[in-house]
Formats: sequence, C-alpha cells, structure tokens
Amino acid sequence: MSYTVYLSGEIHSQWREEIKQGIQVLGLDILVLSPVTDHDASDAAGDVLGEEADNFWRDHKSSKVNLIRTQHMIDRADLAVIRFGDKYRQWNAAFDAGYCAALRTPYITLHSDELIHPLKEVDASAMAWAQTTDQVISLLQYILQD
Amino acid sequence: MSYTVYLSGEIHSQWREEIKQGIQVLGLDILVLSPVTDHDASDAAGDVLGEEADNFWRDHKSSKVNLIRTQHMIDRADLAVIRFGDKYRQWNAAFDAGYCAALRTPYITLHSDELIHPLKEVDASAMAWAQTTDQVISLLQYILQD
Amino acid sequence: MSYTVYLSGEIHSQWREEIKQGIQVLGLDILVLSPVTDHDASDAAGDVLGEEADNFWRDHKSSKVNLIRTQHMIDRADLAVIRFGDKYRQWNAAFDAGYCAALRTPYITLHSDELIHPLKEVDASAMAWAQTTDQVISLLQYILQD
Amino acid sequence: MSYTVYLSGEIHSQWREEIKQGIQVLGLDILVLSPVTDHDASDAAGDVLGEEADNFWRDHKSSKVNLIRTQHMIDRADLAVIRFGDKYRQWNAAFDAGYCAALRTPYITLHSDELIHPLKEVDASAMAWAQTTDQVISLLQYILQD
Amino acid sequence: MSYTVYLSGEIHSQWREEIKQGIQVLGLDILVLSPVTDHDASDAAGDVLGEEADNFWRDHKSSKVNLIRTQHMIDRADLAVIRFGDKYRQWNAAFDAGYCAALRTPYITLHSDELIHPLKEVDASAMAWAQTTDQVISLLQYILQD
Amino acid sequence: MSYTVYLSGEIHSQWREEIKQGIQVLGLDILVLSPVTDHDASDAAGDVLGEEADNFWRDHKSSKVNLIRTQHMIDRADLAVIRFGDKYRQWNAAFDAGYCAALRTPYITLHSDELIHPLKEVDASAMAWAQTTDQVISLLQYILQD
Amino acid sequence: MSYTVYLSGEIHSQWREEIKQGIQVLGLDILVLSPVTDHDASDAAGDVLGEEADNFWRDHKSSKVNLIRTQHMIDRADLAVIRFGDKYRQWNAAFDAGYCAALRTPYITLHSDELIHPLKEVDASAMAWAQTTDQVISLLQYILQD
Amino acid sequence: MSYTVYLSGEIHSQWREEIKQGIQVLGLDILVLSPVTDHDASDAAGDVLGEEADNFWRDHKSSKVNLIRTQHMIDRADLAVIRFGDKYRQWNAAFDAGYCAALRTPYITLHSDELIHPLKEVDASAMAWAQTTDQVISLLQYILQD
Repeated sequence: MSYTVYLSGEIHSQWREEIKQGIQVLGLDILVLSPVTDHDASDAAGDVLGEEADNFWRDHKSSKVNLIRTQHMIDRADLAVIRFGDKYRQWNAAFDAGYCAALRTPYITLHSDELIHPLKEVDASAMAWAQTTDQVISLLQYILQD
Repeated sequence: MSYTVYLSGEIHSQWREEIKQGIQVLGLDILVLSPVTDHDASDAAGDVLGEEADNFWRDHKSSKVNLIRTQHMIDRADLAVIRFGDKYRQWNAAFDAGYCAALRTPYITLHSDELIHPLKEVDASAMAWAQTTDQVISLLQYILQD
Repeated sequence: MSYTVYLSGEIHSQWREEIKQGIQVLGLDILVLSPVTDHDASDAAGDVLGEEADNFWRDHKSSKVNLIRTQHMIDRADLAVIRFGDKYRQWNAAFDAGYCAALRTPYITLHSDELIHPLKEVDASAMAWAQTTDQVISLLQYILQD
Repeated sequence: MSYTVYLSGEIHSQWREEIKQGIQVLGLDILVLSPVTDHDASDAAGDVLGEEADNFWRDHKSSKVNLIRTQHMIDRADLAVIRFGDKYRQWNAAFDAGYCAALRTPYITLHSDELIHPLKEVDASAMAWAQTTDQVISLLQYILQD
Repeated sequence: MSYTVYLSGEIHSQWREEIKQGIQVLGLDILVLSPVTDHDASDAAGDVLGEEADNFWRDHKSSKVNLIRTQHMIDRADLAVIRFGDKYRQWNAAFDAGYCAALRTPYITLHSDELIHPLKEVDASAMAWAQTTDQVISLLQYILQD
Repeated sequence: MSYTVYLSGEIHSQWREEIKQGIQVLGLDILVLSPVTDHDASDAAGDVLGEEADNFWRDHKSSKVNLIRTQHMIDRADLAVIRFGDKYRQWNAAFDAGYCAALRTPYITLHSDELIHPLKEVDASAMAWAQTTDQVISLLQYILQD
Repeated sequence: MSYTVYLSGEIHSQWREEIKQGIQVLGLDILVLSPVTDHDASDAAGDVLGEEADNFWRDHKSSKVNLIRTQHMIDRADLAVIRFGDKYRQWNAAFDAGYCAALRTPYITLHSDELIHPLKEVDASAMAWAQTTDQVISLLQYILQD
Repeated sequence: MSYTVYLSGEIHSQWREEIKQGIQVLGLDILVLSPVTDHDASDAAGDVLGEEADNFWRDHKSSKVNLIRTQHMIDRADLAVIRFGDKYRQWNAAFDAGYCAALRTPYITLHSDELIHPLKEVDASAMAWAQTTDQVISLLQYILQD
C-alpha cells in the first residue's frame, strides 16, 4: 500500500531526516512531504513578487506562497506528523493540526512530555502522541505492514 | 441579519467582555459564543468521568469534553474572532484558526503587532487582523449594517 | 444555546428516561430525540407496506423505515449518546457510532467497564466514555453552560 | 477496471484467504486491503508509545493506531466486505458498516442466516448480503466484467 | 419533531391532496412542498423571459425556472415521496429520485405493482415502496411519533 | 415557503430598489440581502484597521472585510440575482457567479442583450437570464407560489 | 489529458459500439465504462445470492448488485453520456442523470428530437444534447484536444 | 511532487507559452492545462450539435461544451493561474476565480498594477498577485522544490 506522509512543524532540529532515514532502512513505500525548511528562504518566499515596506505585508505574502505548497501537501497526505519543539511559538504547527482535524486527515503529534498541558487540545484530536522519531517510525511500519 | 460570532483564545484578559459590551451598546443582532473561560473548570471538565492517575489522560479527557462544546460552536458560527495575548503558548487558539480555515469559517485575528511574525501563517488565512477590540466592534457594525 | 441530543442503543432499560429527567430538573435547553423504543412496533414498522413470507425481507423493510427516522435524527443532532447494555448483540448501536464518526457528529458512549475491550474501536472515536446517566447529565450541563 | 476491496470483521476464520484465492484464480484486478488480523499484535499496536497501567487507555491507544490504518483503507476502498461470525461481539465490524454507510462506500455483508435479525439495520444499508465466500467472489467477478 | 416532505412526480391525479389531507387529519407537524402542478403554467414558466421560436429552448428555459423551485425544495426536504403513475414518461420523477439518492435525501416511491420491473433501479435506492397514499400516511405517522 | 435572495453586482443604478419594491407589492416572503452599496464606504471598509500607504493593500484589506459580509450572504442565500450594467469592469459580479456555480447556489443574471457574448460563460451556468427587474420579480412570484 | 466516460442508458442498440469505435479511430485517451448490457445477465445479477419467490425482491437484489458497479463507474467518470431510445421506460437512465446532476458530474444526453418535451428536465441539467453518436464523438475530440 | 496547473484567462497574448517554456527550462514536473485558446473554435464549440438562429443560444451551447473541458481541468488542478489583460471584459476569468475560491483551489492572479482596483475582490481570495510570467515561474519553482 503506497502512502504519503506530511511532516509539519519544527525546522531547527533533525527530526525529519531521522524519520526519512528510518523509512529508508525499513524499505517502506512512503512519499514524504515537507514545507520549505530553510527559514530565510521561507520568510522570503514572496519577495520575488515585489518588496514590501511593511513587515506585516511581507510576512503575509510569503506565508500565502508557502500555503500554496503546504496546504496542497496536507490535502494529498494520508497522515501528518506534527512536531513541536521547546523553542519558538510554533503556531503554524498548531494551525496545521487544526486544519488536519477539520479535514479528517489523521495526524500524530511528536513532542516531549513537558508540553502535554499546553498541547492538550492538539493532542485530543490526534491519533497518537509520540515522544521520539523511533516511535513514529515504528508506527509507520505497523500501519503499512501487509 | 442575525449572526453568530465565536470568540476563541486568550482567557486571562477582558477582551470578550469588551466585545460583548460593544455589541450591546450598538444593538447588533449577534449571538456571542465562547469556550468555558474558567481555567480550572476547563481543566477539570472530564473529572466527572473518573479520576486519572496520569496527567496526559486527565488532560485528554477534559480536552475532548471541551471540544464537544467548542467545535459545535465553531460549526455554527458565521465568524470567529481569535485572540492571541502575550503570555502562554495558546496553541489551542492557533488550532481553532486552522480548523476554521479548513472549514471555510471566516475568522479575524486579534493581537498586538509584536506577534506579527510568529502568527504570519495564522494571519495569512484570516479575513482581517485587528489590534483592539474597538476595531473588532467596528468591523462587526460594518458587516451587519442594513 | 439550543442543542439537540440523539439517544441511540439499548431499549430494555430506563436510561433514556433518566437522562430526560436530569435535563428537565436542570432546565437545560435540549431537544432529545430517540428511535422508536417499542421493540414489537419497531420490528413491525414495514408491515403496513405488505406482509413478507421471508423474515429477511420483513426485517429489511422495517429497518429501512426505521432508518428514515433515525438517520434524520442523527443528521440533525449536535451530539449522540450511544448506550451499550450487557444483553443482545446491539450491532445497530455500533453502526450508529460508525455513522456518527464518519459524519463528524460527536458522540459519547455509555457502558459498564466490562465492555471496555469489545468496544475499544467504538470508544476510540468517541468524545467521552460515561458509565452512568448521571455522568452524561453532568457533561450536558457543563457543555451548555453560559 | 482496477478496483480496491476492504475486508472488515472476523479475524478467527479463513474467509479472507478464501476471497483472496478466488480473486487470484479468476485473475481479477483487485487490490485487497485488510486490518492487522494478528489479534495480539493488534491489541498491542499502541504499546510502542509507552505502557499503560489502565486497560482502557491501552485499548484506546491501540485502537487509534489501528484506525489510522483501517479508516485510510476504507477511504480508498471502492467496496467493503464486512464479515460477522458467530462468536464475539464484533462491534468494530458494525462500526465499519456505519462508517461506510455515512461515506457512501458500498458494502456487502457476509454472515449466516442465524444473524439476520440482529444484523437487520446493518443489512438494510448494505448493497448485498452473502452467506458464503463463493458468493462474494461471484459478485466481484460479475461487477468487474468487461 | 418538525419535518419537511417533498412530493415529486405525477401531476394528473389527486395523490398529493390525499397525503395532505391525511397529514391534516392526524395533526402531523409536516411542511409539504410540491412542484408547480398546473401543467400549462409549468410549461410556460420561462415565457416571461421572452418568446422562443424553437421548442427545445422554450422547454429548456421553463425547466430551469422550475428547477430553481424544485431543487431548492429537495435540498430542504427531510424526505421525498416520488409518485409514478401509469401514463407518460415521467422521466423528471426518476431524475428527482437519482438526485435524492446522490444527496442522501431519503425517498419513498409510490407506484402500482405493475411498475416493479421498470422501476427496479429507482426502488433499489428508495427507503420504502408504497402502493397507496394510505400507506405513505401511515409511514409518516410512524416516523414522526414521539 | 420562506426564501432568501442575494442581489450581487452593479451599485450605480436603482435595480435593487425596484426588486425590493416588487417583492413588497406582491407580499412575497423573501429576505433580500445585498453588499454594502455605498461605493466610498465599501472602499474604506478596512481603514478602521489602520491606514495603508500602498493602494494594493488598502484594497486588499477592504475587500476581505467586504467578503466576510458577502460570502456569508451567498452562503445563506437560496438564490442570487447578479446584475451587470454597461459601465465598469464588474469583475466582482462575475466572481460571485463563479462562486455560486461551484457551491451550487442557483443564480439569475440580469443584463441587456448587448452583453450576451462577453457574459456567455456566466450565463451558461445560470438558471435564467433576465433583462428587466420586472422579469426577475415575475420569476420570484412564480417560484414562490403555493 | 486522460479521461473517463460512462455510457448510461439504452442497451438494445449499437450506440456504445459506435462511440467506442469513434474514440479508437481518433486515438483519444479515454477509458470507456458501461453497465452490464446483457439484459438477462443484468436481471439475474443477484440470483447467486439465493432465489427469491417474490419478483420485487429478485429485482431489488439484482439492482443493488448492478448499482455497486454503475455508481462506482459514475463516481469515477469525468463525463457521462446518457442515451434515451424510443422504447421502454428507461427510468434508470433518468435516475443516472439526476444522480450525475447532484454530484456535479457533467453529462451529455443522446436522444432524438421526438423526446425533447418529456426529457426537458433531464436536458436542463445536461451540458449538451446530441442526436447522433457522431456528434458525441466530435464533442469528445474537441474537449480533449491539446 | 507531480503537480497540475490550470492557466485561465486572456487568450490574445503569449503568456501561456512563456510559462510553459519556463517550466520546461527548469525541468519542473508540472502538467499544464488550458482552455481551447483558438477564439473562433471556442465560439463554435457547440455548432456541431446543430445551428442556432439566436446568438444567445449559440453562445450558450458553445459555452457549456467549453465548460465540460474547463471545469474538469479546474477540478483536477492543484493551482490555477488567472490572467487579466487590458482588453475585453474577461468575465470568464473572474468567473473561474470565484469558482476556484469556492472549491478552495488556490489561484494566482497575473495582471498589471493598473487593474488593482477593479480586481480587488478577485485578488482578495488569491494566494498571490504576479505582474509578470517570470514571477509565476519563480513561484512554481519555489513551491515545487524538494
């Protein structure tokens, strides 16, 4: 069974690479999709359309360009893994979770147990909560077995 | 034209009361819906179903009980106002925004300009960004005029 | 906030009356809907359309007539409460749960802890699991508070 | 015409193998999907995410992990075959039937005539009732002919 | 429980009046909706928009004006009753049945047993087949009982 | 039968008043909805949220505020009447038509025969083309008759 | 652009073969789908599930088995061609048209001009009316050109 | 990631060729879809179905044939680019934009800054506004990067 997984959230650690490597080692038939994870490139996604004097509009334009990519990826994903790290606000990750919940795209959260309380609404609509990328890989292997 | 507005997000300031008062002063025909804003009551929403030794499951049960209320409210809302304050993670507010975006429920964000950059994805799908409750009230008045 | 609750499942105990009474005592603004709970009348729902020699078709006709009523009720319900007792197969109750899950109508299960294992898939998509009608009434009171 | 069939329900008999063999003998272009049918593995699907002291939560976690697999399979199936045996409660099979009914995924039930009355609501929304795997295979052959 | 029923099909007999009278006698809370049943007025529905030399376009314009009314009525109906008489082609009635089937609006067919074979596909998606208006009235009474 | 009609398009003539007057004279039970038709107020709808140096963003903010009103109105309308005059680009009217077509909200176009060719795609998805407000009023009277 | 066309309706003439041949001659990339056109086999589609004493139920079972095939085909079709001949009631063809209309699957009708008036509602929701298979083939060629 | 883009709007300049060439030069995996851009052929799309004396009906027939092609293309597109030139009414382009907005198909507008004000509603629902085909190509390259 072919399968598509979207990896949403934190861009300052190696969790995506770990999951991709685990998938490769196990030979799972999974297409892995990700947002643009180069922070500066992502912030500048709309600059090609013209410079903005106002930061709000620069962010606005870049975010919409990124949404073309990311919402398309969520729409075609069979499963999302949404990662929350300990730094930054990461409201885009929680936004993706709400978006998945409304569209009935199942998602797994990936975060440490220190974040249980602030993420309780996000976890309440998740299909699973994982603390390590190894756990995510094990779930993928289980889900996709013959 | 009757209208229903859901007020999502921050529970530690008086923004909901300000909006309700503005609606009343202007005599707008708006049903205002809110989550349970008593923090302790909200955290204990699932306790009546039995105690939990594990914090994760206590939060899980309470969050789901709260979701019965809040997702019903979003589903019947014509518009959501989503407030982000300067404290706490407020991932539930960003989750609500993503949920609205996927369901095509229009929403307005309400936050200070210090939060522009971390909220850029949330604002990109919003119909408006307001900084004060007076602005929100003015928009409601404009939208509902004859 | 007006609210509609559908009570699905077991018809051989007084749980529906208990919930209705609790709602009345608390003065909650809830429209309560139920299937036809007279077992013989329900089995005979299609007889007016002509007798059937074959039991399969008699059941088939009656079930469809009952589905006109019950699926309409689920479609307009804001919440379903699905009761599993200790007797009979009660596949219709599990069927209603799956139907709710697919339509995103939130539901609460109501059953004793002896049924945890066989009902695990049904509970996994539920918003809450209650063991007593008092718990259900408390949840309704919480959900509908101002 | 390529075609995908999901086989839901009973895991303690050889009915899935019989259907797969029939498909193979006839050379039908059908992708057959199934839940994880190893009972112990299925019950333990969530254990990799951490042990649970409470049976309810162990079942809850495992059921959700299984739902990632099974609801994905139902979502991509063109047809479901739902098998009820004479043992166990099998509420998950009836849950799948209700889920299919709401999503308009056509399904065939497979059960003996002793179960006609308790399954009447499930059969009322089915496209066919079969008593043997040979009948199911014949239907598939008919449906997929040129 | 308030309820809306759409009466589709044959316009050359008194079946609509019989059902309305039965509803009135029983005091059922049902809003009954019907297409324009004056044949000549219906054929001329589009004439106000300008005369047409070509019959195809006259019919086309009138049919679309009628569709504004009838599809709106089906969209708000909880149940449709679709009547087939012994005269005329009545393709519009079968069209309404297919439209209901796709939208999951339940419908009851009303026709004599001489039409069983040509209506088999239409009946296969119906919730019931009635032969008399008395049967329809009995079903409505059953469905709407407290 | 109560009914809601949304009047989209041209704001520089009296066509809305004519239709409202016709509805009133005939005593039809229709709720009439309209965009804000004060051109300057509409262009300034977003100004309360802060001034913009760039015209694109001023228009952007105001248009989104207006969309909160107009898309809500289309979403609750049973029928839209879309008026094209001889002046201006009126791309918002054609946009509303496409929006209605995708949502299956029936619409009537109202324009002179000089606009037949440029409006052919818009008319192709319309339920009727009227040239005068009297024709629109006649259609409403026909559609809503008992 | 690959494309799928479903051919619905009349089974007693060669129109399907003519369209398939035209597609082949032009080398169009079209997957053509059809119901089972062997009348006797179609009527007997459900017999493998057990004999029925009552004609209504024999027809009922067979029609549902056929619906598994035909509704799947309509669901995956990009376009339907619906043929009405001069004989028989052909209510199944009109039913398919209504089903397509509700699902927004575009369809072309194919019938002689003698059937204009009885088919006016069916034609009103069609994208085109053709009188010959050559016209259908020309439309397919036009639609699929580079 | 494979991707499908629909190019809507102006047919009297070379913008489609520029975008296709840019895609080819960059080796992007994009299927590009377009309406029939031969103006005369497009106006005559329905002529094969029979001549029309009345221009309205000739346009009507041709537009519907073209809609079979274009709405199918929008339905399968992951992104639309909608071009407005300085000539003609181009209501079909604005119609496509509204259609995309309602279906949540993301779209980019492509027009000069002289059209900002009349296109403000169309731009308000767009994901980006580009002024040159080079900008569109850059966005596609960004969106589809690994």
